[in-house]
Amino acid sequence: MVDPLRAKFNPIIGVMGPGEQARTVDLDRAYHLGERIAQEQWILLTGGRGVGVMEAVNRGAKQKGGLTIGILPDSHPQAASSYVDVPICTGVGYGRNNINVLSSTVIVACGLCLGTASEVSLALKNQTPVILLGVDTTSQMFFRQFCSAGLYITREVEETIELIRRCLSKKISDRLD
Amino acid sequence: MVDPLRAKFNPIIGVMGPGEQARTVDLDRAYHLGERIAQEQWILLTGGRGVGVMEAVNRGAKQKGGLTIGILPDSHPQAASSYVDVPICTGVGYGRNNINVLSSTVIVACGLCLGTASEVSLALKNQTPVILLGVDTTSQMFFRQFCSAGLYITREVEETIELIRRCLSKKISDRLD
Amino acid sequence: MVDPLRAKFNPIIGVMGPGEQARTVDLDRAYHLGERIAQEQWILLTGGRGVGVMEAVNRGAKQKGGLTIGILPDSHPQAASSYVDVPICTGVGYGRNNINVLSSTVIVACGLCLGTASEVSLALKNQTPVILLGVDTTSQMFFRQFCSAGLYITREVEETIELIRRCLSKKISDRLD
Amino acid sequence: MVDPLRAKFNPIIGVMGPGEQARTVDLDRAYHLGERIAQEQWILLTGGRGVGVMEAVNRGAKQKGGLTIGILPDSHPQAASSYVDVPICTGVGYGRNNINVLSSTVIVACGLCLGTASEVSLALKNQTPVILLGVDTTSQMFFRQFCSAGLYITREVEETIELIRRCLSKKISDRLD
Repeated sequence: MVDPLRAKFNPIIGVMGPGEQARTVDLDRAYHLGERIAQEQWILLTGGRGVGVMEAVNRGAKQKGGLTIGILPDSHPQAASSYVDVPICTGVGYGRNNINVLSSTVIVACGLCLGTASEVSLALKNQTPVILLGVDTTSQMFFRQFCSAGLYITREVEETIELIRRCLSKKISDRLD
Repeated sequence: MVDPLRAKFNPIIGVMGPGEQARTVDLDRAYHLGERIAQEQWILLTGGRGVGVMEAVNRGAKQKGGLTIGILPDSHPQAASSYVDVPICTGVGYGRNNINVLSSTVIVACGLCLGTASEVSLALKNQTPVILLGVDTTSQMFFRQFCSAGLYITREVEETIELIRRCLSKKISDRLD
Repeated sequence: MVDPLRAKFNPIIGVMGPGEQARTVDLDRAYHLGERIAQEQWILLTGGRGVGVMEAVNRGAKQKGGLTIGILPDSHPQAASSYVDVPICTGVGYGRNNINVLSSTVIVACGLCLGTASEVSLALKNQTPVILLGVDTTSQMFFRQFCSAGLYITREVEETIELIRRCLSKKISDRLD
Repeated sequence: MVDPLRAKFNPIIGVMGPGEQARTVDLDRAYHLGERIAQEQWILLTGGRGVGVMEAVNRGAKQKGGLTIGILPDSHPQAASSYVDVPICTGVGYGRNNINVLSSTVIVACGLCLGTASEVSLALKNQTPVILLGVDTTSQMFFRQFCSAGLYITREVEETIELIRRCLSKKISDRLD
């Protein structure tokens, strides 16, 4: 007998980051982060394309048997990473960045580019917790000026997983209050 | 070792239909259709809310251990059916109807209402195959006048499953040509 | 001194209809409808592309000095009719059909195609008044089954203008009640 | 006799900036910028709501008889500034930020907040020219790291108008090449 409530509250972790311009260090962290998200039995959500951080984190998650959702800007699934289980074809272009943010319980920015910067901005506006993983000081200062809560800085994957866990238990206790 | 290609081509079946105004016959068919979609190991995609055909088909699918995706009009997951595994919060209102259509390999309309009529119209425009299950003659005639292909009429769930299977194998052979 | 309130309540009339497949009779009505909308000093809103009913109604409106807004599915203005004063590039594909509906005070369907059918469905769902101008009996019956109010049938342009006027005064008196 | 081509290439200037949190200096600049945009006979496009920079720039533009377009996140026009001539109700929430960017020939950020930061990011990604008017050094450095062209810094309204003029003539000459 299936327990539907368990399904309902299964957390969705959004991992965002550079596509074509990703640095090797971002790709390595993304792959490892994907593995750890799958091991925690969280659902992975990304922008879905087969490049950069999106490709790496999905590959890591599939390596450990995770479930991967890709929110594509496109109207057809051909652009999806082959490590995405469920390609959602929004057809809304970069309007999909807001869908990524609204659908994720926590957002991790694994490196930054213009697309990721728009997602971090929209997430903080929406009060979705954001973790900046391996992001430079100027960018940290930039986002800090707009918010007093909900923005976290990490350097390592394991520290990121621990922070996600704390954000999730805070969300659950907020709901119970 | 996970085979990612198998994941990639796992078909997504979109089931649409009335919410609050659904007839009992639509709800019964939807529940049974959900069971059968799960047994075929297809992914179920719906508009995600916890009412009418959406609720019934998701409940059927979870009864048989299927994977259920809900594309919500809302900005937050509270409106989702408790039988939805992955609530996608689009925040685009009924603009999400086009996302349902673009993301599904085949669409089944299990009964009709204004929202479903918009989805059938957009699907036919997008050349996504549409199956009208248990839909009245006027509605069949209405959609027939706009298309010579890709529109199918069924009365029973098993016949619908058989038609989906044929649409999927046609899609795969089209891709191989 | 500008009176901003007058600007605010200037009605926006949405005219929808077939693109490439429009019949001559639809194009003739659309051109004349555009002229009359401009003469009434209403703002014209369409899907913005340079074909079919969209092109004809915008051309008619510009002939009489009207203001024309085009809500494009595209990300760039090149696809706009040259008779559109303000091309809005939504980049959301046919998700823009819902924007057309939400932004219009009244919708006129000047002929039908699949795209227009999705707009009529979404408008009726949203309780935006819809006028079907020169539409066949099957289509009238199809939409009638879903709504008891807000759907009107006309055959001629002048009759349509009179109906729009009545819808607008009803909207204003509803607001004052 | 109307010249439709002139209408087609009438530039649309997008002015973005803080809503409820706008500083007095941003509001003063926005009002003056609105006046100058209207005097240049450019169309003003904003996020449309009746607060902060959006309200001030629209009020300035209407004072000089300009045409003002408001791209609202909402499904209904009630939230629009009373200085908006044409409220476009997108119903896509902050997904509308991408529509602002795609529809504008040039973007001016008159102060910064999280919403504006998302718009500047999306504009630079889309290669729409962006002018940061009165924005702090950290924010300038933040955006500079992502782009070598298309980002301009100004302190005064008149300097901003001059820069817009240069961006527009560059766009036209790019098109003629």
